[in-house]
Amino acid sequence: MRGVLEVPESLLPINEAILAGLERVEACFDRQLETDIPPVADLCRHIERYRGKMLRPTLVLLTGLAAHPEASERLASGADLGTLWTDEHIGLGAVVEMVHMATLVHDDVLDDAEIRRRGQTVNALRGNEAAVILGDYLLAAAYHLCSAVESREAALAVGDTAMTMASGELLQLHHREDLSLDEPTYYEIVDRKTGALIGLSCSLGAAASGADDATVDALKRFGRDMGIAFQIKDDLLDLMGEETVIGKSVRRDLAKGKLTLPLIHALGEASPEIRGRLLREVKTLAEHHETPAAGAAVDQLVATMRDLGSIDYARACAEKIVDRAKASLSVLPESPVRDFIEFSADAVIDRRF
Amino acid sequence: MRGVLEVPESLLPINEAILAGLERVEACFDRQLETDIPPVADLCRHIERYRGKMLRPTLVLLTGLAAHPEASERLASGADLGTLWTDEHIGLGAVVEMVHMATLVHDDVLDDAEIRRRGQTVNALRGNEAAVILGDYLLAAAYHLCSAVESREAALAVGDTAMTMASGELLQLHHREDLSLDEPTYYEIVDRKTGALIGLSCSLGAAASGADDATVDALKRFGRDMGIAFQIKDDLLDLMGEETVIGKSVRRDLAKGKLTLPLIHALGEASPEIRGRLLREVKTLAEHHETPAAGAAVDQLVATMRDLGSIDYARACAEKIVDRAKASLSVLPESPVRDFIEFSADAVIDRRF
Repeated sequence: MRGVLEVPESLLPINEAILAGLERVEACFDRQLETDIPPVADLCRHIERYRGKMLRPTLVLLTGLAAHPEASERLASGADLGTLWTDEHIGLGAVVEMVHMATLVHDDVLDDAEIRRRGQTVNALRGNEAAVILGDYLLAAAYHLCSAVESREAALAVGDTAMTMASGELLQLHHREDLSLDEPTYYEIVDRKTGALIGLSCSLGAAASGADDATVDALKRFGRDMGIAFQIKDDLLDLMGEETVIGKSVRRDLAKGKLTLPLIHALGEASPEIRGRLLREVKTLAEHHETPAAGAAVDQLVATMRDLGSIDYARACAEKIVDRAKASLSVLPESPVRDFIEFSADAVIDRRF
Repeated sequence: MRGVLEVPESLLPINEAILAGLERVEACFDRQLETDIPPVADLCRHIERYRGKMLRPTLVLLTGLAAHPEASERLASGADLGTLWTDEHIGLGAVVEMVHMATLVHDDVLDDAEIRRRGQTVNALRGNEAAVILGDYLLAAAYHLCSAVESREAALAVGDTAMTMASGELLQLHHREDLSLDEPTYYEIVDRKTGALIGLSCSLGAAASGADDATVDALKRFGRDMGIAFQIKDDLLDLMGEETVIGKSVRRDLAKGKLTLPLIHALGEASPEIRGRLLREVKTLAEHHETPAAGAAVDQLVATMRDLGSIDYARACAEKIVDRAKASLSVLPESPVRDFIEFSADAVIDRRF
């Protein structure tokens, strides 16, 4: 959310502390990837530009504050919040960002994506081979850092989450072009692919501040829900968005045979006749990817989904999940930090990219 | 080396113990990959057939015995050796095999390989996407297992080694089609790609038995050398071998623009005229991959390399490195286990696949 959120004035001191904390995370990230092998250093420099909102490390830092007994007092007295973050918080922030980067790099290979954050992807620029190995390098670096700075529990949780994420990707791949994909399976995929790492980020931050199990679990649930809502919003952006605004390839999901929530809803709601037309349009899209025919098919598809109320339905689902996420936050005492976390959850829904 | 080595009679009890130990490693490996997601379970079943010699876990077990104060006594009295391996030895055996599997799966994507252990590769059967994610899943599972059963030192070493391996792959990729690749860079690549994990296997086994640092370091050097010799032998097999004997795609190295030790030697030794011809043949190979023209070019290339003494040179290099590896074993007291390890080192050179 760095530089993206416009926070209310009362939350500005937290925002400033987070920005300073993220700089420490970035320094740790860069240190961990330092290498004396020039081609490796080259590739690592390339992915620096992928660094965007740093949502996951931000959540490590925020939950680290939220669960810290001294945070509210410091905030009230105007004292520095940054010293509450130990090397463990900072290291874990770098770890979750590194795992995220690795999945971005590998996802771009899987999706044949050419643009990410307004720059060329590693696979487009250096080939799939370099992208596959760079992803492996980032994963290895994340695990190494995790073993270096953290408790065994954190390392275990990171390994477990990475397994969950990969199994979510495999599940999604298995259901590619499966036009009968149902909502529970959709949610299972999204929870694993996106929810798991955001949930991990929230639980790691709180645990590193010594939070009790109930708090850690509630914050993990908060993060998972936030991740799911984030992904539904991503689906909507992929469908409706413009490449120039989002800064990455759009309308890839359908071309790659990935069913999104609005489409699942539309296929369930449509009359047999309209359902038949929707299926034909999806097929056209998958077969004539990136041609004018595909562009027309998407526009037609979006119009039909809108008529069926599927766009509104997906948006409402995301909002309901964000509400559920915010309810999980009641485990925390009222505080400006809690307000800030709530505020970030709302931002998931409001974002335009 | 399971089922491959014909060990002298005096070493049979060790061989039997290793076979029983490897069964425990396999059980641990399978347990770690258990999942209730059917498409993930499917893919994991597929890679079971990749399990071959299990060289790396074998070395964890062997060095675990070699560094164990009670091993020789037990062997002399005919007592069971297997109880000397703790859950740590077994878990680490599964970890190194899992890391190895992950690199095989990703390597096959990079190499467009279609055959591995006489079966179709994951990428050939299920596509590159499934292979990339399956590799990630295996890596995550390895790190998770490592954090679950081991000392932080072991987890750190595994993360560090995985970084070294990926950087070796990136270095190799960087030098693809670089016909001026020199021997030091070749050795750097091979040491990272193959030596590092075999060295790790040897050091982990010894450390888990409580060996002192000097022993752990010497065994790591032994393993790295063994890995390098193994790779040179692989280069030779790729050049001279037949697919039916080796059970995986052959002559891929040259087609993929990877320089091997015999070719580096030949390019250095050849007269300007022959060098020009060699370079043309390599180019033909890379451009007309899998055509009759490529087959003829390889045969011609091998004949030229043989004339220049390059095949013998590479073979002699591998033998010298195995000798150096065996010299590192002098850190261990004389024992049948040490003899067995020496024997395995010789087998690297003698193997036909």
